[in-house]
Amino acid sequence: MKIVITGGAGFLGRRLAKVLLEDSDVAQVILSDVSQLRAPSHDERLVLSQANLLDPGAAAAVVDGADVVFHLAAIVSGQAEADFDMGMSVNVDATRSLLEAARATGHCPRFVYASSLAVFGPPLPAVVDEQTAVHPQSSYGAQKAICELLVADYTRKAFVDGRVLRFPTVCVRPGTPNAAASSFVSGIIREPLHGEKAVCPVGRDHKLWLSSPAAVVENLIHAAWLRPDELGFERIINLPGITVTVGEMIASLERIAGKEVASRVVFGEDLKVQRIVCSWPSSFDVTRALRLGFSRDPDFDDLIMDFISDEKAEKNLKRP
Amino acid sequence: MKIVITGGAGFLGRRLAKVLLEDSDVAQVILSDVSQLRAPSHDERLVLSQANLLDPGAAAAVVDGADVVFHLAAIVSGQAEADFDMGMSVNVDATRSLLEAARATGHCPRFVYASSLAVFGPPLPAVVDEQTAVHPQSSYGAQKAICELLVADYTRKAFVDGRVLRFPTVCVRPGTPNAAASSFVSGIIREPLHGEKAVCPVGRDHKLWLSSPAAVVENLIHAAWLRPDELGFERIINLPGITVTVGEMIASLERIAGKEVASRVVFGEDLKVQRIVCSWPSSFDVTRALRLGFSRDPDFDDLIMDFISDEKAEKNLKRP
Repeated sequence: MKIVITGGAGFLGRRLAKVLLEDSDVAQVILSDVSQLRAPSHDERLVLSQANLLDPGAAAAVVDGADVVFHLAAIVSGQAEADFDMGMSVNVDATRSLLEAARATGHCPRFVYASSLAVFGPPLPAVVDEQTAVHPQSSYGAQKAICELLVADYTRKAFVDGRVLRFPTVCVRPGTPNAAASSFVSGIIREPLHGEKAVCPVGRDHKLWLSSPAAVVENLIHAAWLRPDELGFERIINLPGITVTVGEMIASLERIAGKEVASRVVFGEDLKVQRIVCSWPSSFDVTRALRLGFSRDPDFDDLIMDFISDEKAEKNLKRP
Repeated sequence: MKIVITGGAGFLGRRLAKVLLEDSDVAQVILSDVSQLRAPSHDERLVLSQANLLDPGAAAAVVDGADVVFHLAAIVSGQAEADFDMGMSVNVDATRSLLEAARATGHCPRFVYASSLAVFGPPLPAVVDEQTAVHPQSSYGAQKAICELLVADYTRKAFVDGRVLRFPTVCVRPGTPNAAASSFVSGIIREPLHGEKAVCPVGRDHKLWLSSPAAVVENLIHAAWLRPDELGFERIINLPGITVTVGEMIASLERIAGKEVASRVVFGEDLKVQRIVCSWPSSFDVTRALRLGFSRDPDFDDLIMDFISDEKAEKNLKRP
């Protein structure tokens, strides 16, 4: 089985590749990205392919013979809001180019698309499900919603066998802050653990809908392995997550890492971030996803402990 | 005031132009189409512009200085289903090109977009409103839903001042059958009145959501004149319509034109048409549209009588 992961330079793509390679049925994993790639593990089955998916030839080369395509490549929310044209180009046009390449293979590959809770916005019902109308309040959300429609129609036409996953905000992400409006969500946990201050742009009572990187990766793979008849013709799935307030996140951090660490979170309003993040829902009915076998994190403490143990493992690997 | 109408060779575009020109505040109406145009009336303020909106230069020339753009140009449902690539090109890419041209004017013109009930599909609630998630079951519906998201985001970014109208099936259309899956809806009234047989591809109990051409044109103009503060930030509107069954339509025809005329409707299943048309909802809650002042036809008899008097007027005009 040959698997393609776009956005392969990103942390989720790398992590997904590593987990996929634990499966001996996987013959090849192609990590593709427009940026320079580093192999996430030493494995002969891993191929790095630096390519701009906007180029039809490059897209065709990437998906050639692929059984499964995980399309994770995207411009994040803050950047798509700041540069509308770049967002359209990367988030919409490159997705369409990849879908066209997948269609041209003629064998209807599985196409797992990483969408986002950012497709939703006010007016919101008390609890969001798959029957809730999307009202994106960011260009990122609009672009993701457009691609959801594309993947659904390409699936209906049997050009690809699509599965659209609406991600909760992924927390705790490793690394450094990025241009996502939700970057602070990981920042207020990660930076204090690293001995640094972190500014929280929303209030203590602000509710978030979160998933650990581990659960998201597990759910991406689960989505790819589901049979078409298990999914039926409705291919858009709100992934499970947990609802927590910023205050509860900081309380978790204090429980696990102590008062001093938790005190490194300071509050500082940022209207630009608030405008985007406060339009996202925090309460979902994910009955359908759970029935389909998708995973949910137990609680927020678990997300922090996952992050701490991931970082330890990473450090041990880097030792000579 | 300068007004642009795309799809200006179509019957709705021509009719809209005629009604707009009754208003002395309208300085210019540009009828644009990729097909050859005929002037719907003799008026110095009318400009015919044959242009392919996919060409950015042509799109820019069409919207140059426009205060209002009515974007009606589209490939109809049956054709978009038969030729996916042409549907994407005309229904999505040309809309985007026009939106980009409107954005480039720098003065945020009003942009009235003709969407359709075809964005909806099963699973459907008993009554559809603006909070109902779209589930297009045709490429036409998917393409319309994509453009709704584009117009909404271009509006949020203040690139255009958008208004999206989801049309009911327009009935009775004059002329000849076209490639729309809903072509029969006008056909089963129009053809019998012209002394011809008409084949109905769906059953007698099939429910439809209809609007007369007159109401749609009135509503297009109403949408353009509404102030941004009257609309608020939600720019997608399900237009009012009436719910009727095919059986009720034929009963109306018999009431108005007699038994012999009504007997010219015959039934003949067409699965291709059914697959599309039967996915559309027939019951809407249009409280919001009515509150905003949009119009609704009184009943189906009225739609037939409208059509008969329109045809009479047209014939009288054509007499030497």
